[in-house]
Amino acid sequence: MKYAFLPSPWKESADHLRAAGHEMVDLSENPDLLIFRGGASDFPAELPESVKVVQIGYAGVEQLLEAGILARHAGCGVRFANAAGIYDDTVAEATLALLLAVLHRHKAVSREWNQEQLFGETEYLFDAKKLAIIGAGGIGKKLIEFTAPFGVEITAVNRSGRDVSGADRTVAMGDVEAMEVVWSESDCVVLLAPLTPETRHLVDATVLAKMRNNAVIVNVGRGALIDTEALTTALQDGAIAGAGLDVTDPEPLPADHPLWEMDNVVITPHTANIPRFMARRVGALAARNWELFAAGDSMSTEVDVEAGY
Amino acid sequence: MKYAFLPSPWKESADHLRAAGHEMVDLSENPDLLIFRGGASDFPAELPESVKVVQIGYAGVEQLLEAGILARHAGCGVRFANAAGIYDDTVAEATLALLLAVLHRHKAVSREWNQEQLFGETEYLFDAKKLAIIGAGGIGKKLIEFTAPFGVEITAVNRSGRDVSGADRTVAMGDVEAMEVVWSESDCVVLLAPLTPETRHLVDATVLAKMRNNAVIVNVGRGALIDTEALTTALQDGAIAGAGLDVTDPEPLPADHPLWEMDNVVITPHTANIPRFMARRVGALAARNWELFAAGDSMSTEVDVEAGY
Repeated sequence: MKYAFLPSPWKESADHLRAAGHEMVDLSENPDLLIFRGGASDFPAELPESVKVVQIGYAGVEQLLEAGILARHAGCGVRFANAAGIYDDTVAEATLALLLAVLHRHKAVSREWNQEQLFGETEYLFDAKKLAIIGAGGIGKKLIEFTAPFGVEITAVNRSGRDVSGADRTVAMGDVEAMEVVWSESDCVVLLAPLTPETRHLVDATVLAKMRNNAVIVNVGRGALIDTEALTTALQDGAIAGAGLDVTDPEPLPADHPLWEMDNVVITPHTANIPRFMARRVGALAARNWELFAAGDSMSTEVDVEAGY
Repeated sequence: MKYAFLPSPWKESADHLRAAGHEMVDLSENPDLLIFRGGASDFPAELPESVKVVQIGYAGVEQLLEAGILARHAGCGVRFANAAGIYDDTVAEATLALLLAVLHRHKAVSREWNQEQLFGETEYLFDAKKLAIIGAGGIGKKLIEFTAPFGVEITAVNRSGRDVSGADRTVAMGDVEAMEVVWSESDCVVLLAPLTPETRHLVDATVLAKMRNNAVIVNVGRGALIDTEALTTALQDGAIAGAGLDVTDPEPLPADHPLWEMDNVVITPHTANIPRFMARRVGALAARNWELFAAGDSMSTEVDVEAGY
């Protein structure tokens, strides 16, 4: 298969595709497939007729949909695939790593050998913990898989309230009464939700006051899901026990912010998903999707060009 | 059920047993069961005839066996249970926490927002990793459960070479040729073995030189399984990528030891197993074993008083 890669190729993707026997060419050299990882304004005005498939290098293609790009080329028989789900396991693993680091008090470890302190403060995930996953989509499902062997009781929270497989129960985010129970009974709260007007400061002083004193919160969604100042106060006051943050608001968190100093707060610099990983996977995804296309099948991440996902 | 708890009770065990309706009494008040967590010299010279079951508060009862205590009381119809397996999941979870903290470079995080560095250095467990578990007993089996969803390829190493369920292969520690492959091909090496003359400095300069540059090693067995100075050198030279240590040699590791400073070394102060947890669980274990005994069944951790386990 010949493919073009615009606006500029990712080395890891190209390496993977070369190893799989595919050839990178210019758009003018009649590629079969286009890998595209730019914005709407970067999309070529015209595609050669040879292009049958466009593999997008990211998950959300709303911008291409709104610019009419999907519809225009679909009208000429071009099919689109996105990169949905491509970082579910990276983010789910990073989430579990943060959760365990907070529960196991890694940051409180001292070279002064504070074993007695850690004996008292270490908590275990498997120890009859109630875990709430707020925004339980693809990443949440992966996190459910990763945490299942620990026997945690999982409440999935999503917009629709439609049952999430593997969770002990699913709650709709708009169900005020059920959410009261989620906030007040969970030992671990993981935030994976997108940022919308409804989810901004979802975790504020009011919600933090409802949470258990032993509760830990992990945010790998968007920083502004949490009111940072309210979180800082809750942690200082012992209203909750700890936090693991891959995203913050503001981001980067200023170097003099008190959260950096707290030994019950583990921060990673928005690294739950990693470009190098995306790059490697997009190559494999394009190759797999091309195989499916060539076999006359639906592609694994085929985009409904009207719905845009 | 009435029980005595010698040499002195654990509060958490007593709390659990009280909640379950059992009553703590002195040894002189005809208890049905004795919970014992001392050494051979602490064991009462005589047990009242009322005592049918002795629940030991730890796993290894060799000392009681050698002192003849098991045989003597077994001869009078007393049955013994130990606490085998009681910390498998605490240690396995702590092991996974250390492994993830090293792979995800938690200690390298900087408030100077070193995102680019972490993009480059973070590794994922699920990413086609080969994991070797050296000393794969009960804890190892639990670790296999916890890591199974990550799709890692697991090599279990034990003394007998007898197949460990859930591992992709099992290797006998004495199989020199197979161990060469284990050392040279594993991305993650977890040490869970007991310390014996054969396992002392199992990981020395020679073994470290065989390991992959990207390899990380996690020790939750005994500190002296690793030659600490050789490990320090290997980490300084980049011969291996990182280490997670719950045990060290010497222990505590001196506050000025260079391992403390390394951002690819995560150390916890021998807290993979936690007394508070043991204490809580011994109560539950004693209650469960009493139920089994009362029902005429074999107890869940019944000791073969001749074999001593």
